[in-house]
Amino acid sequence: MSTGGRERDAVRLGPGGEFQTIRSFLAALPAAPGVRVGPGDDAAVLDGGIALSTDMAVEGVHFRFDWVTPAEAGYRACAAALSDLAAMAAHPVGVLVSLAVPGPGGAASLPIMGGVRELLDALQVPLLGGDLTRSPGPVVIDVVAVGRAEHPLLRRGARPGDELWVTGRLGAAAAAVAQWERGLEPPPELRERFVRPTPRLAEARHLASALGASAGLDLSDGLAGDGGHLAAASGVGLVIDAWRIPLHPAVASEGPGIALHGGEDFELLVTIPPDHPGAEVENFRERFDLSLTRIGTVEPGRGLRIRDVPGGEPRRPERGGWDHFNEAEEEEQG
Amino acid sequence: MSTGGRERDAVRLGPGGEFQTIRSFLAALPAAPGVRVGPGDDAAVLDGGIALSTDMAVEGVHFRFDWVTPAEAGYRACAAALSDLAAMAAHPVGVLVSLAVPGPGGAASLPIMGGVRELLDALQVPLLGGDLTRSPGPVVIDVVAVGRAEHPLLRRGARPGDELWVTGRLGAAAAAVAQWERGLEPPPELRERFVRPTPRLAEARHLASALGASAGLDLSDGLAGDGGHLAAASGVGLVIDAWRIPLHPAVASEGPGIALHGGEDFELLVTIPPDHPGAEVENFRERFDLSLTRIGTVEPGRGLRIRDVPGGEPRRPERGGWDHFNEAEEEEQG
Repeated sequence: MSTGGRERDAVRLGPGGEFQTIRSFLAALPAAPGVRVGPGDDAAVLDGGIALSTDMAVEGVHFRFDWVTPAEAGYRACAAALSDLAAMAAHPVGVLVSLAVPGPGGAASLPIMGGVRELLDALQVPLLGGDLTRSPGPVVIDVVAVGRAEHPLLRRGARPGDELWVTGRLGAAAAAVAQWERGLEPPPELRERFVRPTPRLAEARHLASALGASAGLDLSDGLAGDGGHLAAASGVGLVIDAWRIPLHPAVASEGPGIALHGGEDFELLVTIPPDHPGAEVENFRERFDLSLTRIGTVEPGRGLRIRDVPGGEPRRPERGGWDHFNEAEEEEQG
Repeated sequence: MSTGGRERDAVRLGPGGEFQTIRSFLAALPAAPGVRVGPGDDAAVLDGGIALSTDMAVEGVHFRFDWVTPAEAGYRACAAALSDLAAMAAHPVGVLVSLAVPGPGGAASLPIMGGVRELLDALQVPLLGGDLTRSPGPVVIDVVAVGRAEHPLLRRGARPGDELWVTGRLGAAAAAVAQWERGLEPPPELRERFVRPTPRLAEARHLASALGASAGLDLSDGLAGDGGHLAAASGVGLVIDAWRIPLHPAVASEGPGIALHGGEDFELLVTIPPDHPGAEVENFRERFDLSLTRIGTVEPGRGLRIRDVPGGEPRRPERGGWDHFNEAEEEEQG
């Protein structure tokens, strides 16, 4: 499928303004019996702790076949869906995969499912079922992730005084996309972070159980966008110290903007009460061989602000995360 | 989106040969802990009875906007997904809806979700969550249906000597499609059966509990195709008496072929042991104001055969259900 100029930046997207549309329906829904966590978090949770999320990846919007192989597209779509379970501190139970692929014969589904299978085998997560259909246009991969979350980590729950922490080093996936957009092939260490993101499943459960994380989500939309979601859901203000943001070594020279406004990192952003056991931070880093960095604080108020230098005055971000609908709109108007 | 000749008949499709592709992956999967029913039935069932199904509807393949409105497309996609839960004799718990719609702004999702909402409100089923993304091509609607099935009705379980029964009157949806394909507007009573199919949820639970149904599924692919799936899963033969097939009054003159080879009826095909309480059949008809018709028998052997006249020799069907991939292949070759 060809992807014209309108889709150029659309790979960097996430649950930004696009969700306002669907939320107009969701907000009016009554609380449902049997549902512990309804729409608006990373996954729904039923009474009994079953967590459910659905994540749709569309060729030309979320990935392009001149950038990634079909197997990589499958791996990535599956990792993104499992990352929603990680955001809830859930154990994965299985996934269902719906595919639409160009005909004839449906053979195009085989390498995509090979990539899905590679990740599922590595994580020992079963494929529970799926659907396969013909597409008259782009490849579409919808992955339903099913998990169990006895004590789900929600977007709401952050309290003023909590600390804001992030796992891993950010910006590599966004940098890979930026290279592709310039017609370059990104270096392997950047490319790999785009095509094979790691859902931080065990890490999230540890943050919830050992460090008492009060709220959290996975970073699909950039720190500014996703931090804003967390602040809104918790009814608090967040202040991010820009100089503390851990960047991937290959993008360190680009400054924190790439982590604030570039998406697809699939790391975890959590709030942790200040009285957490300090030894557990080091324990986390050793156990998972993954950085864990305090990047800010939860404060009274609303929304997300960024402090650029120590002692400086926090400012509102000039923009949020990526939103492919708004972007398309701008380009159509422009 | 325009749909050319290649998609003309593709609306009548279902889990036919298309599933062979994905099955090559599923068959090799080990039995997973925590999973009671794995891939290959209408829904997966977890330990504890949670039933999960995903059903993807693609513009130009499953529906066309010169045939149905966006609201009708949403209603229909949701009904098809819930029909998979009916096929398992499950109680619906909720649905998640992933949408890909052309930009800008995602406004095209609103009427589609209005149709989804209409059905969910009527059934008192909550919307648990979803995803919304831009599509560079067709509208794609993926509906995840979540239910509870303490005693799921499976495709396997039919035994020689059981009787084969079907709910409702068949062929109206296929007849509506045939009219559209001829450039005609189908009469309302046919059109309605295509755009607003009824998932037979309570009916399936009654067939399982009161009539002891031994196996069953929902008819998305025509009696020949879906009967073949049931026979294969149960390892038995099925003989359908063609003259017993209940046809919708408006298509009665077309003969049983439209029910055997035309899909999208979303009625239930079940096997029932011969010692079932006969009064319960009449009870079912009155309770649900729906016909329930014995159309054949389960026999030793394999596969599905059709008896055209009383006393006649059963024959293999000349073809199965609809398969959009095979169909596309034929047309590409032709």
